[in-house]
Amino acid sequence: MTTTWKLATRAEKMNPSVLREILKVTERPGIISLAGGLPSPKTFPIQAFADACAHVLHTDGQAALQYAASEGYGPLRQAVADMLPWNVDPAQVLITTGSQQGLDLVAKVLLDPGSRVLVETPTYLGALQAFAPMEPVPVSVASDDDGVVVDDLVAKAAGNASQEAARFVYLLPNFQNPTGRTMTEARRQAVSEAAAKAGLPIVEDNPYGELWFDQAPPLPLAARNPDGVIYLGSFSKVLAPGLRLGFLVAPKAIYPKLLQAKQAVDLHTPIFTQRMVSAVMKDNFLASHVPTIRALYKRQRDAMVAALRREMKGLDVQFNVPVGGMFLWARMPEGIDTVKLLPRAVERNVAFVPGAPFYAGPGDTRTMRLSFVTANVDEIDTAIAALAAAVREELAAQAKGQPAPALG
Amino acid sequence: MTTTWKLATRAEKMNPSVLREILKVTERPGIISLAGGLPSPKTFPIQAFADACAHVLHTDGQAALQYAASEGYGPLRQAVADMLPWNVDPAQVLITTGSQQGLDLVAKVLLDPGSRVLVETPTYLGALQAFAPMEPVPVSVASDDDGVVVDDLVAKAAGNASQEAARFVYLLPNFQNPTGRTMTEARRQAVSEAAAKAGLPIVEDNPYGELWFDQAPPLPLAARNPDGVIYLGSFSKVLAPGLRLGFLVAPKAIYPKLLQAKQAVDLHTPIFTQRMVSAVMKDNFLASHVPTIRALYKRQRDAMVAALRREMKGLDVQFNVPVGGMFLWARMPEGIDTVKLLPRAVERNVAFVPGAPFYAGPGDTRTMRLSFVTANVDEIDTAIAALAAAVREELAAQAKGQPAPALG
Repeated sequence: MTTTWKLATRAEKMNPSVLREILKVTERPGIISLAGGLPSPKTFPIQAFADACAHVLHTDGQAALQYAASEGYGPLRQAVADMLPWNVDPAQVLITTGSQQGLDLVAKVLLDPGSRVLVETPTYLGALQAFAPMEPVPVSVASDDDGVVVDDLVAKAAGNASQEAARFVYLLPNFQNPTGRTMTEARRQAVSEAAAKAGLPIVEDNPYGELWFDQAPPLPLAARNPDGVIYLGSFSKVLAPGLRLGFLVAPKAIYPKLLQAKQAVDLHTPIFTQRMVSAVMKDNFLASHVPTIRALYKRQRDAMVAALRREMKGLDVQFNVPVGGMFLWARMPEGIDTVKLLPRAVERNVAFVPGAPFYAGPGDTRTMRLSFVTANVDEIDTAIAALAAAVREELAAQAKGQPAPALG
Repeated sequence: MTTTWKLATRAEKMNPSVLREILKVTERPGIISLAGGLPSPKTFPIQAFADACAHVLHTDGQAALQYAASEGYGPLRQAVADMLPWNVDPAQVLITTGSQQGLDLVAKVLLDPGSRVLVETPTYLGALQAFAPMEPVPVSVASDDDGVVVDDLVAKAAGNASQEAARFVYLLPNFQNPTGRTMTEARRQAVSEAAAKAGLPIVEDNPYGELWFDQAPPLPLAARNPDGVIYLGSFSKVLAPGLRLGFLVAPKAIYPKLLQAKQAVDLHTPIFTQRMVSAVMKDNFLASHVPTIRALYKRQRDAMVAALRREMKGLDVQFNVPVGGMFLWARMPEGIDTVKLLPRAVERNVAFVPGAPFYAGPGDTRTMRLSFVTANVDEIDTAIAALAAAVREELAAQAKGQPAPALG
C-alpha cells in the first residue's frame, strides 16, 4: 500500500503563489528587476557585522551559541523599547524570526476558521499568506491615498446577527507595501479613535518606517493606544534582511499567548544573530547608518519618478510619489492588464509585480508595484524606458487586435 | 471601550507550560541542573564559527545578508543530502529554523482539528506543543524498551466508522527524548513494514542520531521507505543550538506544501547562519568534531550511571543505560511523585524534569528525565547524591505522614 499523505484542509487550499511563479521568469540574468522587495545590498554594513561577529564570539561565544529564552535577548529587547517613540516596557517586546513570523503568531493566536480580518485595499501579500493557514476571511476595507477609509472600517468591523465582529484590522501606515502610500496624521487619529471606540484590535506593521526621505512619518498607531495595538517591526530594512530579525510589541493582555505560540514554532529566534545585531547597534550605529539608506533610496525614487514622467508622457499612466520606503504604485492606461503586460516587459529585460494579487477582493488589473531600491539610477532609467515601450507595444497590438505574448 | 482581544479557540487552550513554570525555579544560581536539554557549551566550535563568519562576510557578504530562497541555501541542502545514509535528492531538503519548526510545518500541512496523531509513550513534549495549535488529538501508542509496540501502532492507526485513520505517527527512534531509548533494528523493520502496509505516514525526528557512544544506531526509518516518511534533523546537537538550524527531508508528494507553509511563516531561515554552517562543515569538519562530543557525553553518561548505582543503592529505583544522546530515564520508588519530589531536590541544589508531562495520556508520576550532558562529571556525582538524599527524605517524611514542601 502506498502511504496516504492526507492533507489538512488548510493545506489543500494552499496554492503555489501566482506571484512566485510569475517572478521566477524575472530572475533571468540580464533582467532589471523592479519586482522584488530586496533592499539594496550596497547598504548592508558588512564590516560592522564582521566586527560584531568577532566580538560576540570572542567575548561570549558559548552563550551566543546555546539555547536561549523564547522572549529574545534582553539587551536587544531593551534596545527595541528604547528606539520606539512611545513608552514601551521591554517585557512587552518579543523578538521574532523576521516580522513575517510576527504575522504567523498573530494569526495563530487571534484567528479561527471563518474569522474576519480587515485589510487595506490593496495590502501586503505576505500577510494574506501568513494568515491563510488559520483559514480566516480577509475583508478589504476601502482605502484612499491617506489610508483606510474610516467609515468603511467601522462598518466592516462590527458584528451582527449573522457574523462576529472582525478579529482585527491589519494596517501598514508607513510607505505601505505595495502602494508606497502613507497614512496622514489626521487619518491616524481618526482610525485610532474609531478602532478604540469599536473595540477593534489593530495589528500595525511597520517594516519601512525608518526609510523616510524628508521628514519622519507621524506617530505609529500603537503610540496612540498601546493596549489596542500589536506592533510589528523589523531590522531587515535598516540593517539586513538575511538575518531574519524582527520584533513585536504586544499589550500585556495578549503577550503571554504570543510567547507560547512563539515557543512552539521555533523555541527562540537565533541568539547568535540577536547578539550580533545588538552589538552592531551599540554606540548609536543606526543614527549614522540609516540616513545613508534614506539618501540612496530617495535618489532612486527621484530617478524613478523622473523616468516615469519622461517615458510615460502621453500615456494615461498614474503613479504616486512615495515619501519613503521602497515601493511606488502605478496604474497603466485603460485596457492594460499588467499580468498580460509582464511578458512584453520581460522580453525587454524589465520586471515588475502585477498589482492584482495584492487585493484581498477583486484586484485592479491595471496596477503594478515598482521597487526603486534594488536597481540603481541608470538601471531605473533603462527599465522605465523599456516598460514604457512595452506599454506602447501592447496598446498598439491591442489596436491591431493581436494577442499578448505568453510568459516563457 | 476597551479593545477586545478575542482569542482563537486554539489560543484559549494554550496554557503556560507546566514544565516551563517548574523549570523557572531550577535556574537559580548554585543549582546543578540535570533538567534542561542544553548541549555542553564546551563542545561548541567557537573558533571554527569565528573563521566561518569572517570568511562568509569577506567573500560573499552581500548575498549572506540579503533575502534568500525559502528552500534554503543550495550547498547546505546538498551537504545534508550527502550526509544522510540513503539516497536523498537535495530538492527534497528544506532548511528549517531549528527542527522544532519542522514540527510546526508538519502540523500545519497534515493536521486538522480532531485529527489523530500517534505518539510514543512517553514522547517529546516540544512536539506535543508544536502540534497543539492545529488542535489534533494526540494518541499514545504502547511502547517498550525497543520503541513503539507494533500491534498497538497498527490498531491505533486504522480508521473505522466513527473515526478517520491517524494522520501520522511521530517517532524518535534514536536516544529518544525523554527516555533515551533506541529503537532496535528488528523493531524498525517491523514498524516500517507495518506502517507501509497500513498506509500510515511516519514523521521521524532524529536530532540526536549522531551522538552515539559505541556504535551507530540502525538505519533511520526514512531510509527504509523514503516515500512514507518525513525526516527531521538538526545541527543543534552536532554544532550549536543557538543558530536554530535544522532541516527536513520530505517525499516529493508533500514537499511543495511544506515549502509553502515555510514561506508563510518566516520567508526563509537566516541565510547568514546557513552559510556560516555550510562554511564550517567544509573539509569534513564534523568527522573530527562529533567524536569529541560523543566521548564527552559518554564519560558523563558513565558517571551518571555509576552515581545512580552507588547513591540509589537499596532504593527501588529503575533506570536505563542509554547508548547515545543526552537523556536518561529513571523511575523512583513506589510512592514517589516526582513533581512533589522536585522541591526537595531543589532545596538540595539539584534539578530534574518530572516525567509525567511527556505523556500524551496519563503519565507515570514516578518517572523523571535526567540530562547527562550539561553538568560535568563532578557535578553529576554531587547532583545524584543530592537527589538520592531527597528521595530518602521524601520516603521518610511519607512514613511519618509529613507533607512534601512546596516549590518556592
